[in-house]
Amino acid sequence: MFESAEIGHSIDKETYEREVTELREALLEAQYELKRQARFPVIILINGIEGAGKGETVKLLNEWMDPRLIQVDSFLWPTDEELSRPPQWRFWRRLPPKGRTAIFFGNWYSQMLHARVNGDIKDSRLDVAIDAAERFERMLCDEGALIFKFWFHLSKKQLKERLKALEKDPQRSWQLSEIDWLQSEVYDKFVRYGERVLRRTSRDYAPWYIVEGVDERYRSLTIGRTILEGLQAALDVKDRPRRQPHAAPLVASLDNRGLLDSLDLSLALSKDQYKTQLAQEQARLATLIRDKRFRQHSLVAVFEGNDAAGKGGAIRRVTDALDPRQYHIVPIAAPTEEERAQPYLWRFWRHMPARRQFTIFDRSWYGRVLVERVEGFCPPADWLRAYSEINDFEEQLVEFGIVVVKFWLAIDKDTQYQRFKERESIPFKRYKITEEDWRNRDKWDQYVDAVGDMVDRTSTEIAPWTLIEANDKRFARVKVLRTLNDALEAAYRKDK
Amino acid sequence: MFESAEIGHSIDKETYEREVTELREALLEAQYELKRQARFPVIILINGIEGAGKGETVKLLNEWMDPRLIQVDSFLWPTDEELSRPPQWRFWRRLPPKGRTAIFFGNWYSQMLHARVNGDIKDSRLDVAIDAAERFERMLCDEGALIFKFWFHLSKKQLKERLKALEKDPQRSWQLSEIDWLQSEVYDKFVRYGERVLRRTSRDYAPWYIVEGVDERYRSLTIGRTILEGLQAALDVKDRPRRQPHAAPLVASLDNRGLLDSLDLSLALSKDQYKTQLAQEQARLATLIRDKRFRQHSLVAVFEGNDAAGKGGAIRRVTDALDPRQYHIVPIAAPTEEERAQPYLWRFWRHMPARRQFTIFDRSWYGRVLVERVEGFCPPADWLRAYSEINDFEEQLVEFGIVVVKFWLAIDKDTQYQRFKERESIPFKRYKITEEDWRNRDKWDQYVDAVGDMVDRTSTEIAPWTLIEANDKRFARVKVLRTLNDALEAAYRKDK
Repeated sequence: MFESAEIGHSIDKETYEREVTELREALLEAQYELKRQARFPVIILINGIEGAGKGETVKLLNEWMDPRLIQVDSFLWPTDEELSRPPQWRFWRRLPPKGRTAIFFGNWYSQMLHARVNGDIKDSRLDVAIDAAERFERMLCDEGALIFKFWFHLSKKQLKERLKALEKDPQRSWQLSEIDWLQSEVYDKFVRYGERVLRRTSRDYAPWYIVEGVDERYRSLTIGRTILEGLQAALDVKDRPRRQPHAAPLVASLDNRGLLDSLDLSLALSKDQYKTQLAQEQARLATLIRDKRFRQHSLVAVFEGNDAAGKGGAIRRVTDALDPRQYHIVPIAAPTEEERAQPYLWRFWRHMPARRQFTIFDRSWYGRVLVERVEGFCPPADWLRAYSEINDFEEQLVEFGIVVVKFWLAIDKDTQYQRFKERESIPFKRYKITEEDWRNRDKWDQYVDAVGDMVDRTSTEIAPWTLIEANDKRFARVKVLRTLNDALEAAYRKDK
Repeated sequence: MFESAEIGHSIDKETYEREVTELREALLEAQYELKRQARFPVIILINGIEGAGKGETVKLLNEWMDPRLIQVDSFLWPTDEELSRPPQWRFWRRLPPKGRTAIFFGNWYSQMLHARVNGDIKDSRLDVAIDAAERFERMLCDEGALIFKFWFHLSKKQLKERLKALEKDPQRSWQLSEIDWLQSEVYDKFVRYGERVLRRTSRDYAPWYIVEGVDERYRSLTIGRTILEGLQAALDVKDRPRRQPHAAPLVASLDNRGLLDSLDLSLALSKDQYKTQLAQEQARLATLIRDKRFRQHSLVAVFEGNDAAGKGGAIRRVTDALDPRQYHIVPIAAPTEEERAQPYLWRFWRHMPARRQFTIFDRSWYGRVLVERVEGFCPPADWLRAYSEINDFEEQLVEFGIVVVKFWLAIDKDTQYQRFKERESIPFKRYKITEEDWRNRDKWDQYVDAVGDMVDRTSTEIAPWTLIEANDKRFARVKVLRTLNDALEAAYRKDK
């Protein structure tokens, strides 16, 4: 879920200064239009890792916008008055009126997260708090509110570096109380429970935006632009927005560096390396599937990727290791008539493996947020809600003991071009290339955005995405097999 | 929550036979139209008390409608195939396709309820299951499904009588396995947890319909008519219904006997009785409010009722007992400008008492489902969602220790007429009667429906409604005071 926020986004000074001038002007204008229309309030929630720039960002927003129209609340210590009333009262009394903006810093999410991290509450109490938060936000959005939820993220490594830098800076070393965060257990817990909260409360009408906190310029511009675009879209909707889905779950990354760009596509294996490693991993898989601990599990592998990225070949290398009775391949094409008469996920549920079975999905339920999104086969409201429906779905699988492994096979545009041309020239491969493949290629950038969003919103601790560098087919096939094996072993270890 | 389903509804044979003929024809027609449009599926959930006619009703629906287009599933014992997959799989595989109807008997609600009643799970696990059910239904409705949820109810007394009757009937005495239900603990638990489930999962797009199970004819007609009206409304919406709110939360009671009709408005106190009892109850209240246990609580009293039902007088008799520093009266009129700029419940939250305070609301948050509904001041989607928002709200109050007491002061139409006339003729009372009061009176029947729905949907174990027979002012005032006192004592008892 935090993948895209660990790749070291950054914006150079010149770009930043140029963009900020425009952004500030546009933000102010939107703010005055919000006040003029006075049709709905804006609520901005600030959450995430300590030390990732939450405080600085709030300060900046106050500088950029008209502070008379913004109120900032941090909800640190409840007052006596607040303590003598139900806990929700403090939030209610601070709600901004229509036409105004509130920044809630240390809000309902901070409270439940700290309680869980400290061990004051257990998972089921956390889930109850999550549910209450969701109801509250749903009500607010039904009443017209526009809610932005920002999660500031740093990888553990990034956090360490940041703290080291702080130490050296005498003017800011007082902030080192944040050093608590270095205690790796706290960081890990915070990220783990944070992910649970984000997974369950990211809704089309109030999605979480995850922001990488390392580069101040990148961070600030991202927040500013997200607010601006969301606000402008809401101001343009003339009818009162009732639980309006946000225009897009994520703004395209500002530095044009998406998750896919961060892959090292030059990774490759020699023929000899390939031969040895493939044989090793295939033997490992065969053993792991025959292991008696597999009786308590089943395995679901999802293969997605660019056209011509080598999904078919990778799947074949997996199944080569196995007895045909041990696996089942489900190729996903256009839905049948029967499937169209059912809710979207129905056609995947019907193929769910029983215990001790292995099902391979050649393309999958992610079609909704990939091809259906890009081609406009379904309205935005449908693919926007799909992220959380898919997370719910995979959670149900994993809770039952199914091991879910998801692959995105990534190649670059040149490699795809070469493979397309090759397919056209080799008679027995010609059936693999169609006009549609060339058309999809024209939408390369849109797919890049869609894949980035997909991974950010559905790569979870319980069912993570694995990005496969697939320019070299040998490297890709071995990495796929190894990932499957590692996932099975991890599941067996947890059984103990 | 079950109030309206314990008043002994019944339909005579002649009416029944006349209505059934029409109903069956219309149901068949709607069913064929559903098949022809094939735009959405219909899912009917059957839950509630054993012995309240669930099985008979399902049998009847199958008789009335075309059984080729209905599938009935009872989900009693999972098969081996089902046990080897995630628990949700069994429901997914049974979902009806667009154009068809499924009746789910023993569904996800039965499972969570039985687990809770048997003590297999605790409240927080129940809440997690409730939340999962809500997500599942939301997804289904987002995908277009039309869901009806029926809860069959019998009061404990009704259940006992029904079982006695069964015992005497040799042909049906085999059904006496239901006698388990007589064990009062099981019944009580089932109703208590059932209420929790209903309160949290009744949503405008998938509300619960509570059906009194005593009279077979009443029960059957109610179910049939609810399905027919809901189905017809959905078939008429030309756009694909996406989480469409149901047309009305409840059909008006078929035998024209609502909850309010079941009140005995002849209840009265003589002057002497009044004097004695009023003094007693006032003294009791004064003591209870001064009790040191009140420090852990606060008290919220809501007064609603017909115009001229005597709310003001009743409130005065309450406050007469107290020091003015001990209470606060909040009269609710049209919202101020500041209040209109906030979510609906904001103007009530702002008046929530701190611990050891007592706040009296003269009219309240129920305005949304009363005057705003009847006068059309807000669209149906808004007042429909208000029921669950209000339940959430009151739950937050009660969880904090606030004692919430809600009164509906009921008079009959003649009494109201006399009081209006009296007010017009007495100079110092003339200000209390306006044109608007006369206009409201014209909508008497609509208010009766609205009050019935309100009580059914928001009278909960934690914050029940008390209906006050108010034709006799003396009786009403004493009953109000006594109810307040009883509620405080009950709260103190629970503290231990």
